[in-house]
Amino acid sequence: MTKAVSSQPKTKRGIERRAKILAAAEQVIGEKGFAAASIADITRAADTASGTFYIYFSGKDVLFRELVEDMGRATRSQAAERIATAANRLEAERAGLEAYLIVVRDRPMQYRIVEEARFVDPDAYRTYYSEFGKAYADQLQQAAERGEISAGDAEVRAWALMGIAKTLGERFVLWEEGEVDIERVVAEAHQFICNGLAP
Amino acid sequence: MTKAVSSQPKTKRGIERRAKILAAAEQVIGEKGFAAASIADITRAADTASGTFYIYFSGKDVLFRELVEDMGRATRSQAAERIATAANRLEAERAGLEAYLIVVRDRPMQYRIVEEARFVDPDAYRTYYSEFGKAYADQLQQAAERGEISAGDAEVRAWALMGIAKTLGERFVLWEEGEVDIERVVAEAHQFICNGLAP
Repeated sequence: MTKAVSSQPKTKRGIERRAKILAAAEQVIGEKGFAAASIADITRAADTASGTFYIYFSGKDVLFRELVEDMGRATRSQAAERIATAANRLEAERAGLEAYLIVVRDRPMQYRIVEEARFVDPDAYRTYYSEFGKAYADQLQQAAERGEISAGDAEVRAWALMGIAKTLGERFVLWEEGEVDIERVVAEAHQFICNGLAP
Repeated sequence: MTKAVSSQPKTKRGIERRAKILAAAEQVIGEKGFAAASIADITRAADTASGTFYIYFSGKDVLFRELVEDMGRATRSQAAERIATAANRLEAERAGLEAYLIVVRDRPMQYRIVEEARFVDPDAYRTYYSEFGKAYADQLQQAAERGEISAGDAEVRAWALMGIAKTLGERFVLWEEGEVDIERVVAEAHQFICNGLAP
């Protein structure tokens, strides 16, 4: 058996061509689903010869896993930028939710790809959310110790907050039939996240 | 084209046989996924002749849609029972979350089937969550008017609460490596849902 690998090009042209294949794959797999999207579809959309694919990826599964990981990187980098100026954890929560909804708006296919990973590559899916959940819980724990948020089980809260972000992204960004209004949704959700439902 | 149909048997034996096929399908499709699960796999698991399938269902797609709808019915009936004795909306939230996690624990394959519907039958998936979200928002709106919960956008809150239930079910029930402790997770989550993160 050949080990599944992806290789990083060294030349500028190679880097660009690899990125182009990834961007095309995000679109094609996001639209058609993993099984129906062929490597020929992907290279056609990337405007490259189909053999070029194998210079960078040993197969569709390897490329798919990279797309899943890329959603994590995109969210983290959007969030890091916005959270940097947050004065405390409550503000960071607001910034993080906003960052996530922006990523869903700008890269809707990635949302779908991550969800399809549950079936296509369950390990990648679980790793994706588990690592995210662990880092998130650590941050909440530290914030509670600093008194920026109330005390409570950090892991349960981290997953609850991830769930809020996911479903709001689905309903108010991906499925929104009117105008996507991230600011309004974030403001409403943040109110709930800070104060809860109690009267 | 033949219209996709499922038919309801009239005899006790027919009702039992149809239920047996549905239960087997839940298991087989939940484990293998929709595409890989054949009708022969399902009838074999149900211990019936493969032709029997078509007495009740015109195809696998029709049966799949019924499985998705069944998750909604199971959750609603579990919840209705528990919510009946809730004194107010906050208690109803606690009861509803507990009911949902119990359904996920008892019927893990159904959780997976509903998630796979996103790809197999996007309309059924969207209808499933949209109807749920609408009914949920109505209840929150009424509770806010009665002063049982604070004021706020009922729809955003409904989807946030659905997201909390979904991810907690995934992490602390489906993926739990230790003992599943629904009571603890519900208590922690309820604390957050009532009071939020603010210190």
